[in-house]
Amino acid sequence: MFSPLIDELMSSLRCLPGVGPKSAQRMALHLLERDRVGAERLARSLHKAIEGVGRCRRCRTLTEQELCGICRNERRDPGLLCVVETPADVLAIEQAGTYQGKYFVLLGHLSPIDGVGPEDIGIDQLLQLLQQEPVTEVILATNPTVEGEATAFYISERAKNLNVTVSRIAHGVPLGGELEFIDGGTLAHAFSSRRSL
Amino acid sequence: MFSPLIDELMSSLRCLPGVGPKSAQRMALHLLERDRVGAERLARSLHKAIEGVGRCRRCRTLTEQELCGICRNERRDPGLLCVVETPADVLAIEQAGTYQGKYFVLLGHLSPIDGVGPEDIGIDQLLQLLQQEPVTEVILATNPTVEGEATAFYISERAKNLNVTVSRIAHGVPLGGELEFIDGGTLAHAFSSRRSL
Repeated sequence: MFSPLIDELMSSLRCLPGVGPKSAQRMALHLLERDRVGAERLARSLHKAIEGVGRCRRCRTLTEQELCGICRNERRDPGLLCVVETPADVLAIEQAGTYQGKYFVLLGHLSPIDGVGPEDIGIDQLLQLLQQEPVTEVILATNPTVEGEATAFYISERAKNLNVTVSRIAHGVPLGGELEFIDGGTLAHAFSSRRSL
Repeated sequence: MFSPLIDELMSSLRCLPGVGPKSAQRMALHLLERDRVGAERLARSLHKAIEGVGRCRRCRTLTEQELCGICRNERRDPGLLCVVETPADVLAIEQAGTYQGKYFVLLGHLSPIDGVGPEDIGIDQLLQLLQQEPVTEVILATNPTVEGEATAFYISERAKNLNVTVSRIAHGVPLGGELEFIDGGTLAHAFSSRRSL
């Protein structure tokens, strides 16, 4: 409909999550009509990030250095290791601001149906790290989904003989949530995990 | 929080319309974790589009050639000229599929408060085109906003002495719309522009 270059730009924008044909058209025309400087900057940033960003050698999160900022930070508690599924989870926990230990990022979860096994999510590297570093507690913070729970269970089984405490983050009613709008599974979990006061 | 290159990518993605900090983070991590091929392709498409895409010499729409596909198409009726605000409007009308004439794209609308005058939206070029080409009717299809209406009125005044019919697209209740949910202004317009059957 438009010229080939504009059509190509629209179809390339579709690789962004949550961007359908209408949004892609709006984005392409916005960039070309009103923000060519921003578009050029975006092209450069994309290129540089793809070239430069790899995985942290220790925790597997995304970084352009060999070790990410958190792994290099000597003020973080080396005795605590939090296992999460994605770099976005690291960011969410960091923004909460209370956790002072280190991380290990699986970059996925066990999912036999998609052909994702323990070797794909770095379980061997995780176990090796538990043996080499002075870790006393592994906190499993995978998502509370079927796959996330299965992954947490698998890791806890494998870590049993390694002389570390394995814990799972608590699940229950979120702060500020109203009971009326909480799903049944969460409520059931909140009751079964109740604590005496 | 992340490494500099990832932070830079996130902030660059903010130039896209409708993308806030959370979406930008999601997009950046998605591209780096799961779709580096798509990201590289997007960077290339952006670069090529910025370099290659300019304005059509005749109708001012976005194109990488001197004349856009519609202006070059000799089967389009040269007697009809539709004036729209943006290239996206051209696309919307083309998708409706009934209009067979040509276009003129203002790339904006009159807006004295933002310092946008007639020279910024190519009014002189439009009037020149009306004199040089065998146009018999100008269809004003600017948006039904205050600025769009003012722009349509201004063009109709300037085109009066040029021996062309000037018309405005109809405004009223959209097809498939339910009266209950139509705003008062549109309803008032639909009543005042009623046609006898």
